[in-house]
Amino acid sequence: MDFAHSARTVDYLARVTDFMRTEIDPIEPEYHRALAAADDPWTVLPVITDLKKKARDAGLWNLFLPDVEYGGAGLSNVEYAPLAERMGRSFIAPEIFNCNAPDTGNSEVLVKYGTDAQRDKWLKPLLDGEIRSAFCMTEPEVASSDATNMAATATMDGDHVVLNGRKWFSTGIGHPNCAFTIFMGVTDPSAHKYQQHSMVLVPLDSPGVKVERMLPVFGRHDEPYGHGEVSFTDVRLPADAVLAGPGRGFEIAQGRLGPGRIHHCMRLIGLAENALELACQRATARTAFGKPLANLGGNRERIAKARIAIDQARLFVLSTAWKLDTQGLAGARSEVSAIKAAVPPMALDVIDMAIQLHGGAGMTDDFPLAAAYAGARALRLADGPDEVHLGLVARAELGRYA
Amino acid sequence: MDFAHSARTVDYLARVTDFMRTEIDPIEPEYHRALAAADDPWTVLPVITDLKKKARDAGLWNLFLPDVEYGGAGLSNVEYAPLAERMGRSFIAPEIFNCNAPDTGNSEVLVKYGTDAQRDKWLKPLLDGEIRSAFCMTEPEVASSDATNMAATATMDGDHVVLNGRKWFSTGIGHPNCAFTIFMGVTDPSAHKYQQHSMVLVPLDSPGVKVERMLPVFGRHDEPYGHGEVSFTDVRLPADAVLAGPGRGFEIAQGRLGPGRIHHCMRLIGLAENALELACQRATARTAFGKPLANLGGNRERIAKARIAIDQARLFVLSTAWKLDTQGLAGARSEVSAIKAAVPPMALDVIDMAIQLHGGAGMTDDFPLAAAYAGARALRLADGPDEVHLGLVARAELGRYA
Amino acid sequence: MDFAHSARTVDYLARVTDFMRTEIDPIEPEYHRALAAADDPWTVLPVITDLKKKARDAGLWNLFLPDVEYGGAGLSNVEYAPLAERMGRSFIAPEIFNCNAPDTGNSEVLVKYGTDAQRDKWLKPLLDGEIRSAFCMTEPEVASSDATNMAATATMDGDHVVLNGRKWFSTGIGHPNCAFTIFMGVTDPSAHKYQQHSMVLVPLDSPGVKVERMLPVFGRHDEPYGHGEVSFTDVRLPADAVLAGPGRGFEIAQGRLGPGRIHHCMRLIGLAENALELACQRATARTAFGKPLANLGGNRERIAKARIAIDQARLFVLSTAWKLDTQGLAGARSEVSAIKAAVPPMALDVIDMAIQLHGGAGMTDDFPLAAAYAGARALRLADGPDEVHLGLVARAELGRYA
Amino acid sequence: MDFAHSARTVDYLARVTDFMRTEIDPIEPEYHRALAAADDPWTVLPVITDLKKKARDAGLWNLFLPDVEYGGAGLSNVEYAPLAERMGRSFIAPEIFNCNAPDTGNSEVLVKYGTDAQRDKWLKPLLDGEIRSAFCMTEPEVASSDATNMAATATMDGDHVVLNGRKWFSTGIGHPNCAFTIFMGVTDPSAHKYQQHSMVLVPLDSPGVKVERMLPVFGRHDEPYGHGEVSFTDVRLPADAVLAGPGRGFEIAQGRLGPGRIHHCMRLIGLAENALELACQRATARTAFGKPLANLGGNRERIAKARIAIDQARLFVLSTAWKLDTQGLAGARSEVSAIKAAVPPMALDVIDMAIQLHGGAGMTDDFPLAAAYAGARALRLADGPDEVHLGLVARAELGRYA
Repeated sequence: MDFAHSARTVDYLARVTDFMRTEIDPIEPEYHRALAAADDPWTVLPVITDLKKKARDAGLWNLFLPDVEYGGAGLSNVEYAPLAERMGRSFIAPEIFNCNAPDTGNSEVLVKYGTDAQRDKWLKPLLDGEIRSAFCMTEPEVASSDATNMAATATMDGDHVVLNGRKWFSTGIGHPNCAFTIFMGVTDPSAHKYQQHSMVLVPLDSPGVKVERMLPVFGRHDEPYGHGEVSFTDVRLPADAVLAGPGRGFEIAQGRLGPGRIHHCMRLIGLAENALELACQRATARTAFGKPLANLGGNRERIAKARIAIDQARLFVLSTAWKLDTQGLAGARSEVSAIKAAVPPMALDVIDMAIQLHGGAGMTDDFPLAAAYAGARALRLADGPDEVHLGLVARAELGRYA
Repeated sequence: MDFAHSARTVDYLARVTDFMRTEIDPIEPEYHRALAAADDPWTVLPVITDLKKKARDAGLWNLFLPDVEYGGAGLSNVEYAPLAERMGRSFIAPEIFNCNAPDTGNSEVLVKYGTDAQRDKWLKPLLDGEIRSAFCMTEPEVASSDATNMAATATMDGDHVVLNGRKWFSTGIGHPNCAFTIFMGVTDPSAHKYQQHSMVLVPLDSPGVKVERMLPVFGRHDEPYGHGEVSFTDVRLPADAVLAGPGRGFEIAQGRLGPGRIHHCMRLIGLAENALELACQRATARTAFGKPLANLGGNRERIAKARIAIDQARLFVLSTAWKLDTQGLAGARSEVSAIKAAVPPMALDVIDMAIQLHGGAGMTDDFPLAAAYAGARALRLADGPDEVHLGLVARAELGRYA
Repeated sequence: MDFAHSARTVDYLARVTDFMRTEIDPIEPEYHRALAAADDPWTVLPVITDLKKKARDAGLWNLFLPDVEYGGAGLSNVEYAPLAERMGRSFIAPEIFNCNAPDTGNSEVLVKYGTDAQRDKWLKPLLDGEIRSAFCMTEPEVASSDATNMAATATMDGDHVVLNGRKWFSTGIGHPNCAFTIFMGVTDPSAHKYQQHSMVLVPLDSPGVKVERMLPVFGRHDEPYGHGEVSFTDVRLPADAVLAGPGRGFEIAQGRLGPGRIHHCMRLIGLAENALELACQRATARTAFGKPLANLGGNRERIAKARIAIDQARLFVLSTAWKLDTQGLAGARSEVSAIKAAVPPMALDVIDMAIQLHGGAGMTDDFPLAAAYAGARALRLADGPDEVHLGLVARAELGRYA
Repeated sequence: MDFAHSARTVDYLARVTDFMRTEIDPIEPEYHRALAAADDPWTVLPVITDLKKKARDAGLWNLFLPDVEYGGAGLSNVEYAPLAERMGRSFIAPEIFNCNAPDTGNSEVLVKYGTDAQRDKWLKPLLDGEIRSAFCMTEPEVASSDATNMAATATMDGDHVVLNGRKWFSTGIGHPNCAFTIFMGVTDPSAHKYQQHSMVLVPLDSPGVKVERMLPVFGRHDEPYGHGEVSFTDVRLPADAVLAGPGRGFEIAQGRLGPGRIHHCMRLIGLAENALELACQRATARTAFGKPLANLGGNRERIAKARIAIDQARLFVLSTAWKLDTQGLAGARSEVSAIKAAVPPMALDVIDMAIQLHGGAGMTDDFPLAAAYAGARALRLADGPDEVHLGLVARAELGRYA
C-alpha cells in the first residue's frame, strides 16, 4: 500500500493550488458580488473568460480527461481526484479549468461514443471552453431514482429520431454558451429493460426544445449555470444524433457514472475542507464568554470530528477511484454507490457545523457557507438520493450470503 | 395531570384551523408566486390586508396577548401555544392574525414597560395591525450570544439619549409599514453587568438610522419582512424614549424571553407538522421500484421517528409554557433554554427528511419545504445558538450537585 | 392542560421516595455484593423479605394495581407512572413494593380474565408477595416480533389442554418462589389470525415443563429473577387452565400491553435519571487537565442533552398513560408503540454517556451503570424491537393519508 | 497511490485466514463453552496450547514484531494491520498467533529499551509464548486520561527502586502464565512533566504485589486474561528493573502508542466485520411478516451504512499505519489519536446493529455479539476515552490557524 500521490498529481496539485491562491481566491468574492448586482446574472463576466485563458496557458486545462489524444492530461481517476478536490473549494474554479459538470461527463461520452463528425462539432468547442452543455435525464413527474420510471421518449421515425417529454434539473442549461444537451428517452419499451433507452445529442436551438423555467435550489439559481425545467415537443433530429445508436442509453449512462461520482464527491470534500478552514478561523478569531469560540462547549470535539469525517471520506473516494482504475466499474460498483451515499451527508454536516460557528453571518452570503450548503444538499439528491445508493450497497453485501 | 386543552383553546383552535383552511391555504401558494413576481416584493399585497380584516372581524386577532385590557384574548402561554403551532404551518398566518414576531414581543414590552403616551403612539397601531416594528439587538462584529459583548451604545446626554452602533438580523425592518424599532445598547459600562444596558424606542425615520442592506438567509430575503443590517449614527432622541428608564435593558430582555421562545418553538412544531404531512402525502402518492415511496428502505422508520420527535417536542414546549404560567420565568429558566436548544434541530431534521422524500422538487419553491428549512435554520441561531442554551441547561443541572 | 401530579400521586411519590432513600438506597450496593458472593445467587436474601414486609406495612404495596377490590391502590396509569419511575431507579425496589414485572401484568390478567378459583390460587399469593410468576411467549426458533410466527401449541384435547413448544426470555422463571407461568400457544391455526392463540396458566412443577437453561444477557443472569429457556413437552392440564377459554390469547396479550409498556418505560426513565445523577456527580467531583470533568470538551452539552431527552421522554410516556386512561388502548395504540420505540434508546444513550464519564469504573460493578445498560438494552428488544414499533407508528401515520 | 497489499501481506493474510477457518473457527464456540463450564476458568485449555504450537509450526507467529533479529516477521505497520484485522475476528486468535496485547507492546518495549539480560529473561519466553505479561498504568482513584494525574510512585532508593500505588484495568494479569508486568509510576515530581515517570519491569511474584480483584467489564471477566486491580506496596526491586533508566516512562509510553493503536483498531474492524457477517446471515435466514429480515424497515440501509463505516474506518487506520511507517509518530500524531476516537464507536454501532437484528439471541452468548460489544466498549475507554483523543485532533487542527 502506498498512500502517496503520483509525481504527476503532486506536480499538478501544486500548480492548481498556486493558480487558485493567486488568481482565483483574490477575485472570487468580488466576482459573486458583481454577478449578483448584474442586470442579467445569466452572463459570463470577463474575469471568467480571462482566467480560463490563463489557466489554459498554464497547462491547467481539461485535466479531468484521461484521453491525451483529445488534449486530456492522461490522468487516471485516482490521479485526477485530488485536483477535483482542490477545484471544489471554489465555485468557479471547475469552469476556469474547463473541468465543470456536466461538460466533463458529456465530453467523455463524446470521446467514447461519438462519431468524428459529432466530436468535431461538439467535443472540440467543449474542450476549447467555447461552448457549454447540459444533460437531460431527471423528470418532474416521476421518481427518477428508478430509471424504469422514465416517461420521455426518443422515437425512431425512419432516418429521424423524435423527442418528447419533460426534463428538469438540467444543470448548466441556463448558461449563455450552452449549445447542446444530451437527452435520454425511451426508444423501445418492449426491449430488455437495459436496452429500451437512447441518448440523443440535441442542439439547444432545435425547434421544440423549450427551457420552461430555471429552478431555484434552496432559494438559489446558481447563475449563470442554473438548473432548468425543459420541455421537448416533437423535437425531430437526424437519426445519427442518437449516440452509438438506439437502445444504448443505459450502457452510456453506466459508463459516465463512475468518474462523475468521483468528481462530485471530491469536489464536495474540497467544499467541506473549505468549511472546516473557515470554522477554525472563526473559532480562533471570535471571542464569547471570555474565550475563543474554539474553547466553548463541544466546539473542539466538533472540529475534530469534522477532520476525521473528511479524512475518512477522502480515503474512501480515492480508494474507489483506484478500484475503478484497476478493476473497472464492474469491480467498483458497490463503492461507486457507497461514496455517493456517504460523502454528501458528510459534507453537509461539516458545512452546517461551520455555519453554526459563524452564527447569523454563516447564513448570509458574506461567507460561502450557505451557498455551499445548498450545493451539497443538491448533490445529495442529484444522481439519486442516498437511500437508492444504500440499497445498491446492501444488495451487494447481502448478495454474498444468498 | 390533564393533557386536554382548555375549552377556550379548543374553541380558538377550531376557529383558527377553519380560517386557515378556508381563507389562507387556498391563496398562499399563489400569494408567494405573486410576491416573487412583483417589481418590488417589499410590499403588502392587498390579499394580506383583506385577510387581516377578515381575521379581526372573526375575533381571531392578537390572540397572543394575555392582557384583555389592551384587546388581548386573555390566554395563558399554555393556552395560546397550540394556536401558535397552528399559525406556524403557514408563512403568512402569523401576520394575518396579528401575531407575528417581533411585533408580539414589542407589544408585550410596551404593555409592561411603556408609558401611556408610548402606548398611544406605538402600541395601539401595532395591535390594530396598522404599523409593524423591529428589534435591534444582535451585532455583526461580535459574538452576540454573549450579551456582554454588545458594542452599541445608548448614551444619556442631559434629557436626551444618543444611539450609536451597528445591528443586524433586525427582523421585519424591511416591511413597508415598519414604523419603529426597539434598540438595545450600553448606557453605563461601569454599572453591574445586568444594569448596563438600555432599551430605546426608535422611530425608524429618526435621523441617523440607516438600513444598510437586507440580509439574505440561505439565499432568501423573506420579503416583505426581511432581516436588516442597520447603522445608528448619533441618533438623538428624547430621554423618555428609554423604556422604563436607563439601565433596565437586561430586565426587559429577560421578560420577553419566555413567551417569545414558546411562540417560536410552537411555530416550528407547526412547520414540522406541515413537513411531515407533505412527506406522508408524497410517500403514499409516488412510486418507485414498483412500490409507493413509503415502502422503500427506511422511509417508514423515518416517518415514525418524525412523528415521535414532533410529539415529544410539543409536549416539552407545552409543559414549559405551563411552568412559565404557574411558576414564572424563575421557575422555568432551564426549560426555556432547553426548548430553544431542542426544537429547531428537531424541526430541521423533519423538514430535511421531507425534502429528501420529495427529491429535487423538495429543493425548489414548488413546495414550501426549502423555505421552511431556511426559516428553521435561522431560528436555530436567532436568540442564541443551541450551544449557548445547552450551556444554561447544563449549568442548572450541575448546579444541583455543587 | 395541567402538568401537576394528582394529590394522590404527590403523596405516594413522597412516601416511595422517602422509603427508597432511607430503606433501600443504603443497603442496595451491599445487597448486590452479598448476592454475587452467595453460593447460590438464585435465592431471596432475608433483607429483601424484611423490606417487603416494611413496604407493605407502610402501605406502599401493589401500587400498580388499579383495582381496589383486590387490594390495589386505585391509581390510574398516569397516576402510577411517576411511582414506577421512582422505583425504576433501583434494581430491587420493584420487587420490594410488589410491583415487579411480569407479576404485575400477570396479576392484571388474573383480575380481568381469571376465575375465582384461579384468583384464589394464584392472584392472592402473588399480591401477597408470597409467590412469583413468569410469562412464556417469545420463542428461540422464530422471529417472535411477528406473533404469527409462534410455533408453540396449546391443543385442546377433551377437557384438557396439552402444551408443546420451546420458549425463552421467560423473565423471572429462575426465582425460587416462581410458582407458575402464563404460556401462550397456538390452539387453532385455522381460526382468524387473532383467534388462534390461547393463554394457559401453568404451575411450574407440571410434568413436562423444564427450564433448560438460564440465559445470560450481556453477560448477566439477573439473579434471582433470570431469563429462562423453557421446554414444554406434552404438558397436560385441565381445560380450565386456559384463561378466558381457547382462542383469546391475542385479546389478553393486547390488554396487558398498554400498562406494561408504561411501567417499563417509566422504570427506564428512572434508570436514566439515576445515570444522569451519577454522571453529574462524577463530572463535578473528578478532575483532569486541571478542570472538573464537567468543564472538558462537550461534557456539558451531553449533560444538557441528557436532561432534555429524559424530560421529553417522560412527558411522552405520561401523556400516553393519560391517553390510555381516557381513551383506552384503541385511542392510544400508536403512542403505546411510540414510547416503546423511543424510550429504551434514550435511556441507553444517557447511561452510555454516564459510563463514558466514569471511565473504566463505569464498566465495572462498582457503579450500577453497566447493569443498567444491560437491562435497558434487553428492554429495547423485549416485547419487540424498536423497528417493529416504528412500523406500527408509521402505519398509523400513513393511514391518515390512504 | 496504490491500495493493494504488499505481496508479503497477501501471502500471510491467506495463510492466517486459512488457519483460522480450518483450525480456530471450528473449535472456538466449544472452547468458550468448555471454559465457561470449567471449575476454574482462569486456565489455559489444552486446545489453546495445541493451536499455538500449530500456528508457530506454520510460521504464523509473532507477526506483529517488525524486528527479524528477534524472530519477528519484519512487517511494517501497514503490512501487519490487515493480519491484525483478521485475527480480531476471533477472541482467541491473537493469543494463538502470539500477537495478543499487552504482550505485543511489552515485547516491543523490551526490544527497544531492554537490556540483554532483560531480553533473555522476559522477551524470549514471551516471544516463545511460554509466559504472558501485563501493563499497569491506569489508576482507580484519578482520571487517568490525564497522565499528570498519576499517583503511583517508583522511587529510587540507592540501587533499588521502590514501587507504591494502586493500578487497575491491568489486562491479562489474571492469566495463569502471567509472569511480569510493566509498571509506570512517578519517580521525580520536580522534573519536567515528561521526565517525571519511570517504567519498571516487575516480576508478578515480587513481594508487595497483590492482585486485589479481577474487574468485571460489562458483566464479563474475560477469562483467562482478565482485567485486574493491583496494589503495589513497598515493592523493592533492583534499580536495573527501571527500563532505560529513571525518568523515561513518558518516552517509552509514547513509543508503544502508535503500533498499539493500529493493532487495537484493526482488531476492532475485524470484530465489526464479523458482526456484519452475522447480521447479514441472520437478515437473510430469518423471516418475519412474510419477508426475510433484510427486507424489513431500514435494515438494508443499516447494513449498507455498516459496510460503508467499516470500509472508511479500515482505510483510515491503514493510512495512519502508512503514515507511521513513513513519517514516524511525529508525523502521525493527530491520526493516531483520530483512529482511537473514530474506530471504537464505529465498531460499537455495527455490533449493536447486529445484536438488534438477532433479537434476544444477540444478547446471549449463543452468538459472539454481546461479548464483542463488551470488548469494543472497553476499548473505547482503554488508553483514553474518545473525548481526550478528539481534543488532541482538535489541537492539531486549530494549531494550523494560531
